[in-house]
Amino acid sequence: MATVPLIQDHDASTEVQAVFDDIRATRGSDFINNFWRALAHDPELLRATWDRLKVVMGPGTLDPLVKEMIYIAVSTANGCSYCIHSHTAAAEAKGMTPEQHGELLSVIGMASTTNALVTGLQVPVDSAFEKDGA
Amino acid sequence: MATVPLIQDHDASTEVQAVFDDIRATRGSDFINNFWRALAHDPELLRATWDRLKVVMGPGTLDPLVKEMIYIAVSTANGCSYCIHSHTAAAEAKGMTPEQHGELLSVIGMASTTNALVTGLQVPVDSAFEKDGA
Amino acid sequence: MATVPLIQDHDASTEVQAVFDDIRATRGSDFINNFWRALAHDPELLRATWDRLKVVMGPGTLDPLVKEMIYIAVSTANGCSYCIHSHTAAAEAKGMTPEQHGELLSVIGMASTTNALVTGLQVPVDSAFEKDGA
Amino acid sequence: MATVPLIQDHDASTEVQAVFDDIRATRGSDFINNFWRALAHDPELLRATWDRLKVVMGPGTLDPLVKEMIYIAVSTANGCSYCIHSHTAAAEAKGMTPEQHGELLSVIGMASTTNALVTGLQVPVDSAFEKDGA
Amino acid sequence: MATVPLIQDHDASTEVQAVFDDIRATRGSDFINNFWRALAHDPELLRATWDRLKVVMGPGTLDPLVKEMIYIAVSTANGCSYCIHSHTAAAEAKGMTPEQHGELLSVIGMASTTNALVTGLQVPVDSAFEKDGA
Amino acid sequence: MATVPLIQDHDASTEVQAVFDDIRATRGSDFINNFWRALAHDPELLRATWDRLKVVMGPGTLDPLVKEMIYIAVSTANGCSYCIHSHTAAAEAKGMTPEQHGELLSVIGMASTTNALVTGLQVPVDSAFEKDGA
Repeated sequence: MATVPLIQDHDASTEVQAVFDDIRATRGSDFINNFWRALAHDPELLRATWDRLKVVMGPGTLDPLVKEMIYIAVSTANGCSYCIHSHTAAAEAKGMTPEQHGELLSVIGMASTTNALVTGLQVPVDSAFEKDGA
Repeated sequence: MATVPLIQDHDASTEVQAVFDDIRATRGSDFINNFWRALAHDPELLRATWDRLKVVMGPGTLDPLVKEMIYIAVSTANGCSYCIHSHTAAAEAKGMTPEQHGELLSVIGMASTTNALVTGLQVPVDSAFEKDGA
Repeated sequence: MATVPLIQDHDASTEVQAVFDDIRATRGSDFINNFWRALAHDPELLRATWDRLKVVMGPGTLDPLVKEMIYIAVSTANGCSYCIHSHTAAAEAKGMTPEQHGELLSVIGMASTTNALVTGLQVPVDSAFEKDGA
Repeated sequence: MATVPLIQDHDASTEVQAVFDDIRATRGSDFINNFWRALAHDPELLRATWDRLKVVMGPGTLDPLVKEMIYIAVSTANGCSYCIHSHTAAAEAKGMTPEQHGELLSVIGMASTTNALVTGLQVPVDSAFEKDGA
Repeated sequence: MATVPLIQDHDASTEVQAVFDDIRATRGSDFINNFWRALAHDPELLRATWDRLKVVMGPGTLDPLVKEMIYIAVSTANGCSYCIHSHTAAAEAKGMTPEQHGELLSVIGMASTTNALVTGLQVPVDSAFEKDGA
Repeated sequence: MATVPLIQDHDASTEVQAVFDDIRATRGSDFINNFWRALAHDPELLRATWDRLKVVMGPGTLDPLVKEMIYIAVSTANGCSYCIHSHTAAAEAKGMTPEQHGELLSVIGMASTTNALVTGLQVPVDSAFEKDGA
């Protein structure tokens, strides 16, 4: 259960309804997932989060599927179950194949191991990796 | 400073030298970064880590640059400074542009926020995201 | 399910019962939540944890509600669902309004983003932030 | 060293200069800390991050010092050294006393322990903490 | 629910069946837990993970029960519920007593607190802890 | 640099000096590491932390070296550099061999990978791992 009520359409304020309408129009779907219904308990936070998400996950220099895979990687490292479920579904909707999913998990697993080994060994950064003048 | 000595070539055992040789041959570079020199204090762990990394980061269904960006995403969420430096350098060597780097950071930052909001709100997973029969 | 049995009152040893009695007297409520019933499998750990919690969350220089919000912030960053539920309930019992809850989540979300951006960018600490002589 | 160059004023584009000007005006100080100079390598991310931070950390229902302490709590749990230094300096500038700092750390330390104990014990959420209809 | 189907024996490919057979033979039990059934959606990842786990958790210089307790410690810090349940069960099967479990949790809890205090205080490493020449 | 001054002996209050004396007597060494000198800015927190550490790391059902290895495992997963350095030094002082150190890191690395894979796959807990009546 959430720590706040999930706002249903009939309970949505005008501000919340406006964001829900934009989510539906942007996604071309009537479905509003629970994250937005929970965030709706704070209309300003709902609006700010949706407006930023629309920009960040919108058209840019990275492929939309690549962005979803990066999102899954961060969500996995942060242990966010909801986020892993929602972005894995989004990645599959954008064409992620089982082979790509397995390879994504392989990279996440590899990075998790080497992150831990580097940290346990406290490896100093090689000067070759330092930016001149940075 | 590392919690173990960094093994230099003249101190490398035959097993360690064999892995260093494979790293050099695979990368087409004489440079062995500190991670491998620290891992070399345990030749079996060095071998197992390198052998797996070579497979995971080698040819597959995901683009090599995409794999480096996923690696940066996990390393950032895990707070591994060394890994962020080494894989950012690797991503740049594979052609990551400043625009792609900025967009990668934007996705990582966005995921970090929504991970925290979802967790703080304890949002229940929508049944729409559940795999039938999974 | 817990990894240990939850100790019910009729199964409580004298040591455990003494801690349960102190929790009830301190809180002015008969309710003992599952955390303490699980900890009770190790009476010494139960006693040490309760004794310290009573001091840390007791009267001091910070407002009791502020302490609960700090507790929620840490628990969210650490992904502890149980802790988020129990301390959100405690914060509401201490008067946290929906507006304050939304603002708390906004700060937690903001910090999570900038923590990730700073880490991904490996920003060096400004000398202005260093304590002289520290 | 950062993974990107730190943009100095004489290298700032018009967009970047506009954000730097707003930071200076808002804070009433000429000092621009390294976080903004690193973010400036992506003007859009710099602008979005600053605009949101100004709202979140601006006037609201929570005391400005309380917001800084929540920021320190999240940054500590996430292990962001830069963020801990910059927000501890900000909290002190807003009047945090050594006693309040010690008490903040005591709460962070307590939450970190109980988060770990709850997780290791896998304590189930008490129904008393569940929101009706949430 | 998992983000992938859990492969049952009758759906297992020859490669997957071979790993399941090795797990059964190595453990002397017919039981295959869900982790392996989920990993089986990527036979190469299943094989690599099992082969490495068999070496790492196999005979060495550390006691098998000690290895399980270290596994529980890492899984607790990483918040992996499944891993905590499976390795706590494994530790109990290897003879972990309730007293040892409580003491393990006490150390995990203590480390979690001091990790947070050290991070919040940004304590510099004592030169006495630095390895000469490392 | 620390976020607080490191208290030197000549600046120590009577309460702080009493804890420093107990650390020296307990360890049979004159050396007081920076963690305690930083904590000393809050004498109550210093006392509570030291008193608990002395109990948790003192004689019990687990071997002192095993406790140090568990401490290293948690500190590595939490990314606490100072803690990794200090407890690796402590483990070596208690007899940890390079082979044991390598094996400890191998288990930490393995757990880090499987934690990430389980999380990314969202593997449901097997009923076989659930405690009856828990």
